[in-house]
Amino acid sequence: MSIINPSILPGFMELLPEEQKQFDTIKNIIESNFQKYGFVNIDTPLIEKEEILLSKGGGETTKQIYKIDKESTPQALRFDLTVSLARYVSMYAHNLSFPFRRYQIGKVYRGERNQKGRYREFYQCDIDIIGNEKLSIINDGEIPSVIYNIFKDLGYEELILFRINNRKLLSGFLESISVSDFESVLRTIDKLEKIGKENTKNELLKLNIVEDKIEEIFNFIENKETNLETIEFLNGLEINNDKFIEGRAELIELFNYMKKFAIPEDAIKIDLTITRGLDYYTGTVIETFLKGYESIGSVCSGGRYEDLANNFTKKKYPGIGLSIGLTRLYYQLNEAGLIRLEKEENNNILVLPMDETVLDYSIEIVNYLRENNIKSQIYLEQGKAKKKFNYADKIGVKTALIIGEQEKNNKTISVKDFNNGNQVEIELNKLLEYIGG
Amino acid sequence: MSIINPSILPGFMELLPEEQKQFDTIKNIIESNFQKYGFVNIDTPLIEKEEILLSKGGGETTKQIYKIDKESTPQALRFDLTVSLARYVSMYAHNLSFPFRRYQIGKVYRGERNQKGRYREFYQCDIDIIGNEKLSIINDGEIPSVIYNIFKDLGYEELILFRINNRKLLSGFLESISVSDFESVLRTIDKLEKIGKENTKNELLKLNIVEDKIEEIFNFIENKETNLETIEFLNGLEINNDKFIEGRAELIELFNYMKKFAIPEDAIKIDLTITRGLDYYTGTVIETFLKGYESIGSVCSGGRYEDLANNFTKKKYPGIGLSIGLTRLYYQLNEAGLIRLEKEENNNILVLPMDETVLDYSIEIVNYLRENNIKSQIYLEQGKAKKKFNYADKIGVKTALIIGEQEKNNKTISVKDFNNGNQVEIELNKLLEYIGG
Repeated sequence: MSIINPSILPGFMELLPEEQKQFDTIKNIIESNFQKYGFVNIDTPLIEKEEILLSKGGGETTKQIYKIDKESTPQALRFDLTVSLARYVSMYAHNLSFPFRRYQIGKVYRGERNQKGRYREFYQCDIDIIGNEKLSIINDGEIPSVIYNIFKDLGYEELILFRINNRKLLSGFLESISVSDFESVLRTIDKLEKIGKENTKNELLKLNIVEDKIEEIFNFIENKETNLETIEFLNGLEINNDKFIEGRAELIELFNYMKKFAIPEDAIKIDLTITRGLDYYTGTVIETFLKGYESIGSVCSGGRYEDLANNFTKKKYPGIGLSIGLTRLYYQLNEAGLIRLEKEENNNILVLPMDETVLDYSIEIVNYLRENNIKSQIYLEQGKAKKKFNYADKIGVKTALIIGEQEKNNKTISVKDFNNGNQVEIELNKLLEYIGG
Repeated sequence: MSIINPSILPGFMELLPEEQKQFDTIKNIIESNFQKYGFVNIDTPLIEKEEILLSKGGGETTKQIYKIDKESTPQALRFDLTVSLARYVSMYAHNLSFPFRRYQIGKVYRGERNQKGRYREFYQCDIDIIGNEKLSIINDGEIPSVIYNIFKDLGYEELILFRINNRKLLSGFLESISVSDFESVLRTIDKLEKIGKENTKNELLKLNIVEDKIEEIFNFIENKETNLETIEFLNGLEINNDKFIEGRAELIELFNYMKKFAIPEDAIKIDLTITRGLDYYTGTVIETFLKGYESIGSVCSGGRYEDLANNFTKKKYPGIGLSIGLTRLYYQLNEAGLIRLEKEENNNILVLPMDETVLDYSIEIVNYLRENNIKSQIYLEQGKAKKKFNYADKIGVKTALIIGEQEKNNKTISVKDFNNGNQVEIELNKLLEYIGG
């Protein structure tokens, strides 16, 4: 038989078991926080009809989509979890309770240009709160507190920074100075940090905005030293535009409710340059960074949308959502040397029968451990003691139970601690107590 | 904007949040048992190169595969987890510890004919133990004990039945009576239960096996009353064929080790008609049924393979593995009315602020619960009390904390138990104790 070189496609992340364990720990922290805050899981198909996926209209997405070559109905892999959420909510609305607090953790697919740290298959971890016809702004304040606690549990309590804004505020301001084409302006401003002030200015000029107005825009979005200064600045502006006034009120409410939901103020920055590229968002916008590691980019982002499912239903479902791109996050944290989780010890207990004559006794012991819900495994191969200890070493267990002739005859176990090399012979009925302590 | 009818493709399972919770509970029981027995998780890409997926040679698989229409490298969705495991083991062998005990729970894709209970996207939950060059038969006895404990935790302790056999045994027997083309005969016998004795006989005749030999085969595989009788029958056969003798020894060892790994004997049936269709298996074969519900088919199956990765490497990796098709299992259990998990109560605590003036106090309470790791949520919308209680009812919480003016002023909480309708006003500092009890 001819041998095929085993390999995977470029742009896909695949981890060794130890790294996978680290990855899973992060994923579990994310999921358990989602659950702790009362979000329920949904698990939608990875393949959707193309008409569903492309319902928002094409653009970049169409080019990046993974089409499935199957049967008559055009179908493709999902490129995010939001389109499926919109479809789900409009399909099952009658069976859901609103506000509908759902989470979903799943893989999505985008045929991005092949480059370091960009993945074509990656996990998104989404939480959204969806209202029926309306949804209180207070939800916008609660949802970042879930994210705060995730990053706290991951060990980044001191680093996390939410940069918050409201798209109505800037749209209203632009309207008040008679600049139209908000979407293009907002998309341009979104790039400010990446491309710098000069380039941003040039792009705005290309949009036919005169230099004076560009100055006004820059004055408006320029970051103030403190949140208080920004709020005072905004409150001092006498702009008689409904959108602006609504956006300002919402932004200040968001800020206040985030604090009430126990996010420390120094983890929040009102930042009028944050607009998010997508015209999908209509109010609150949030980008999350790790202080001192801004170069790794936003680690969680999202915002408020007025109408989740307008492609699928005439009913109005406003929502607020945040999303962590877990695969990229894991890559970024590694690159930045920021994985703070201690390399987890392998807490399995390893039972090592020294020869065949003690096998049955050894199996009894591993049965006993498992009956008592202790993660455990037994080495069943024949071989020299050295080979068995090497295995213990390689899988990184800290405790092994050594079973030989003596232990079998005495109804004892020799417990070896691989951290300090100590070995103690104890009676079987003391085992649980001993390894528990 | 035109409205697109929200729908999913046929052959895909999608659940409502309550069903999803049930499904996730089963999935969690499976995963936690895998971990308890010392298996480590791997998470491979859903998309693989076509040359990898089809390395075993086409047949049925090629027709069912979901091809991806993307770029120059032919690629497709995985149709099982085993091919990816073989690729993974041969790619990373130097970084793995053998015996390599891996589990994987993930979705796989097969373009099956559209029929009830058959899914095109479904979860497989696999455990395998892979040896480097060799692997003790005792592993074949351990691995069903993981499955036994999963079904025990699911509430099917009394129902589970492992039907076990060894392919060497039947091959050796056929060799001894000079019947060649074992694979075709084994595949035919595999259908015995489904198509009946007469049809099986006709199919064997078509394979040019004479009637006398067919009788001999039926005599051989005919089920005896007890395992002991089968073992005595096999031990009584004086067949001088190495394969037969090896298979017999392995089957009896498997039986004995399954018992040693704490599987009750009445959950095991040595069944010489079990052959599994796939020529992939070389020794032990196992099918798992629920007694009295045989019509729902095998709920877990697998076996021993001598050479996992022979398409990718010249090194030999023998293994033993079992797989649960979770999506189909969930469907089958539901159809059979067998979901024994009680409809889980929603254990979230729901905080219900009665009006806006008590919002801040209510948020303090939900913060406090979450800090103490209690799953909790707060209803943030405005509206009448009735609407709020309806929401509590709809999401099925059993405990709500009612916060009104009085509670705020007294620094108390009214705890409402939805099971019995009782409502008690307690002091804030008694809350944890009260809801914990």
